[in-house]
Amino acid sequence: LLTLRAVARLQEADVIFYDRLVDDEVLELARRDAERVFVGKVVGASAWPQERINALIVAEAQKGRRVVRLKSGDPGVFGRAGEEIAAAEAANVPIEIIPGVTSACAAAARAGISLTERGVSDTLVLATGTGAHGGALPESVRLTTPGTRTAFYMATRQAGAIEKALLAQGVPEDVEFTLACDVSKPGERILTGVLKDLEQTVTAAGVRGCAVILVTWPQDRSARSTPVLRSA
Amino acid sequence: LLTLRAVARLQEADVIFYDRLVDDEVLELARRDAERVFVGKVVGASAWPQERINALIVAEAQKGRRVVRLKSGDPGVFGRAGEEIAAAEAANVPIEIIPGVTSACAAAARAGISLTERGVSDTLVLATGTGAHGGALPESVRLTTPGTRTAFYMATRQAGAIEKALLAQGVPEDVEFTLACDVSKPGERILTGVLKDLEQTVTAAGVRGCAVILVTWPQDRSARSTPVLRSA
Repeated sequence: LLTLRAVARLQEADVIFYDRLVDDEVLELARRDAERVFVGKVVGASAWPQERINALIVAEAQKGRRVVRLKSGDPGVFGRAGEEIAAAEAANVPIEIIPGVTSACAAAARAGISLTERGVSDTLVLATGTGAHGGALPESVRLTTPGTRTAFYMATRQAGAIEKALLAQGVPEDVEFTLACDVSKPGERILTGVLKDLEQTVTAAGVRGCAVILVTWPQDRSARSTPVLRSA
Repeated sequence: LLTLRAVARLQEADVIFYDRLVDDEVLELARRDAERVFVGKVVGASAWPQERINALIVAEAQKGRRVVRLKSGDPGVFGRAGEEIAAAEAANVPIEIIPGVTSACAAAARAGISLTERGVSDTLVLATGTGAHGGALPESVRLTTPGTRTAFYMATRQAGAIEKALLAQGVPEDVEFTLACDVSKPGERILTGVLKDLEQTVTAAGVRGCAVILVTWPQDRSARSTPVLRSA
């Protein structure tokens, strides 16, 4: 699912910084003599602090090397690209951002569904299961309302908290979820069920790591509940 | 920004159905002998009714030809893929959905911003400027709340209605917007401003067609206003 433009830049790179979610197959597209540096970001436990990654990217670019910072999915969607962009700009290092296929799109395609559907999900919400402050109850659930499909990224550890929070704010217990694990990788799995079984499904399937949870609250159920936004 | 997988499928196609937003450059990647059929969808005025497109795709596949339905961006995000998927399934025609780079991601990359940013936009909302019932006031604005970035697709004709609706529900008039027009095409333009000038900017720039409007309401302004979800 790499774009042609991403392949072109990979092949020009002198040094590539990549993390845990990047496939070996992708790295093989780079030049043989390109330096490959694993910066080891793991959900919830960065082997490399973000500041160190930022500093290293800038330092390599200032040596005159062509640097690629390779991320899985789209770098602008829960990829912490903002911090690396800011570091490069502060150092006057010119950058180009290559957009990618974000996980929600890849997951929906494999599940055979359209993320937006007229009269069902007129709005798509991309949220994270990991609270900004590491809280157990993600603030991101608040936008799951009638007529939305919500994609929760990095959400498997928080599946129980998401289920509870959604039920507590009035999402019907029988709205459907789709759980997409390791999309486009060996071991890819697509599981579906209803909201009240979300945590149980994640636990029973032993899902960890790279998964997206899609929750769909169709528009035509809106009469069942009138949720009010919690003050953010 | 086409993916390697999309290129592979294009090159296998016997017939390709494409619409207005697809570049000639992309069509040239297909086999020379592949049939190319323009199904002429134009915002607000489909030359071809969706039902006719569905029927034709199915009929060609049932002749044993390899059919590609080529769309710009990601087919699952405001691409009406759901109707074509349903038509194929109803006819027992096997399909594969190839995800793509959705417009919000492409626009943000060109504008040099990350769609999600910790403490600024923890949630990304993909909405359409065209109401489900063609209404002047898009329902999609209701999820623009503190801590969100909202991408309005197909929104230039509705820029005035979006501006008014956002202001009416308490979005501060000086939150920033980014207007990305014809991204990755000749004539690409990125314009920025504040919400109260959105309609005026779209009008003054003579923007039409393929544009995405990003509106960012940072989390740390939440004290200024406590919006309540309108019942959907």
